[in-house]
Amino acid sequence: MNFHYPNGKRYIPAKKEIIGIKKEKKWSYSNRGMTLEEDINETNDYYLVQNIASIHKKPTPIQIVQVDYPKRSAAVIKEAYFKQASTTDYNGVYNGKYIDFEAKETKNSASFPLQNFHEHQIKHMETILKQDGICFVLLRFSLTEEIFLLEAHHLLRFWKRMKDGGRKSITKDEIETYGHHIPLGFNPRIDYIKKIDYLYNLTRKAESEEN
Amino acid sequence: MNFHYPNGKRYIPAKKEIIGIKKEKKWSYSNRGMTLEEDINETNDYYLVQNIASIHKKPTPIQIVQVDYPKRSAAVIKEAYFKQASTTDYNGVYNGKYIDFEAKETKNSASFPLQNFHEHQIKHMETILKQDGICFVLLRFSLTEEIFLLEAHHLLRFWKRMKDGGRKSITKDEIETYGHHIPLGFNPRIDYIKKIDYLYNLTRKAESEEN
Repeated sequence: MNFHYPNGKRYIPAKKEIIGIKKEKKWSYSNRGMTLEEDINETNDYYLVQNIASIHKKPTPIQIVQVDYPKRSAAVIKEAYFKQASTTDYNGVYNGKYIDFEAKETKNSASFPLQNFHEHQIKHMETILKQDGICFVLLRFSLTEEIFLLEAHHLLRFWKRMKDGGRKSITKDEIETYGHHIPLGFNPRIDYIKKIDYLYNLTRKAESEEN
Repeated sequence: MNFHYPNGKRYIPAKKEIIGIKKEKKWSYSNRGMTLEEDINETNDYYLVQNIASIHKKPTPIQIVQVDYPKRSAAVIKEAYFKQASTTDYNGVYNGKYIDFEAKETKNSASFPLQNFHEHQIKHMETILKQDGICFVLLRFSLTEEIFLLEAHHLLRFWKRMKDGGRKSITKDEIETYGHHIPLGFNPRIDYIKKIDYLYNLTRKAESEEN
């Protein structure tokens, strides 16, 4: 907080402060300036530290073309390109079970566009289900800040509906019916493992009492 | 094959050919010019296509500093650095089970140096075992072209021995005793899932008959 000592003139905030306020308003996500990804990463960090689960975001796949090796300093990648991922973004282990998911958000309020997903991700999800892995998506409606866990078999059903000529999105109603709302918490922020416990009848092993 | 037509002189191969031969000799790995990583990737591709397992190599983690967005072409990463990975390189799902491993090779013949592993990878392996995941390392002796699967709990034991002031490597004898030799095959090349079946009493679900 800044104090503005009286100097006989009306206080006019400096430009920097005004910009600061504007920026804050743009950060609609609880005004915390946190993205869905950051919240999931923090959740995963919490799970890791508490010995609840070991789930990590996969690095972005990159095609490296040119690397420089300057003397006495770290190798510098000078030319590289983004590659399309062949899997979902997050995976890991909870209680011996394989966990695999993708996280997406929309600015829509009435439906979730399926174009957020790619054919190869859908295929990967089918493979995971065949291997009896636990697979789902975390969907976030950024306007209302609601987060839902939707199991992959439901997503695949809606994907098939689109492929068969049906609507290109999942309605909010459908997500509320088949998905599971995850309230935003403090620590962990997005407690998706709690829903997994409930859905797959599992019990988390360890959690320190203070949390 | 080149023909050398008689010209009355003794045949002396061109320098290029000599270099070529030398190069081939350097490719000790079955003279196929394949690395352990390529063999594992091909094995994983085979598992994926045959619906046996879904196991992927994680992309190399990169810290991106500068990206250019040229008009009408793909974004170019102009400055980036390699980051240290916080996990092992490979993970995925087999029969509902979480699979996690690291692959390393050595030019030594009598022992495998533990410096091939990093503290954070060892820590990650401990976490996976706590979560009842299946965790191991694939160790390759490049001179003899032998590959062994060593379960993580053994590796952790040898790591502890080193930390307690003991030897900084695992002897070949120990690897032969506690590890499991994987013969190099054609398709799949390194059938580590077969060993996992044996060790964890699992049965692979699908495999096409022709393979």
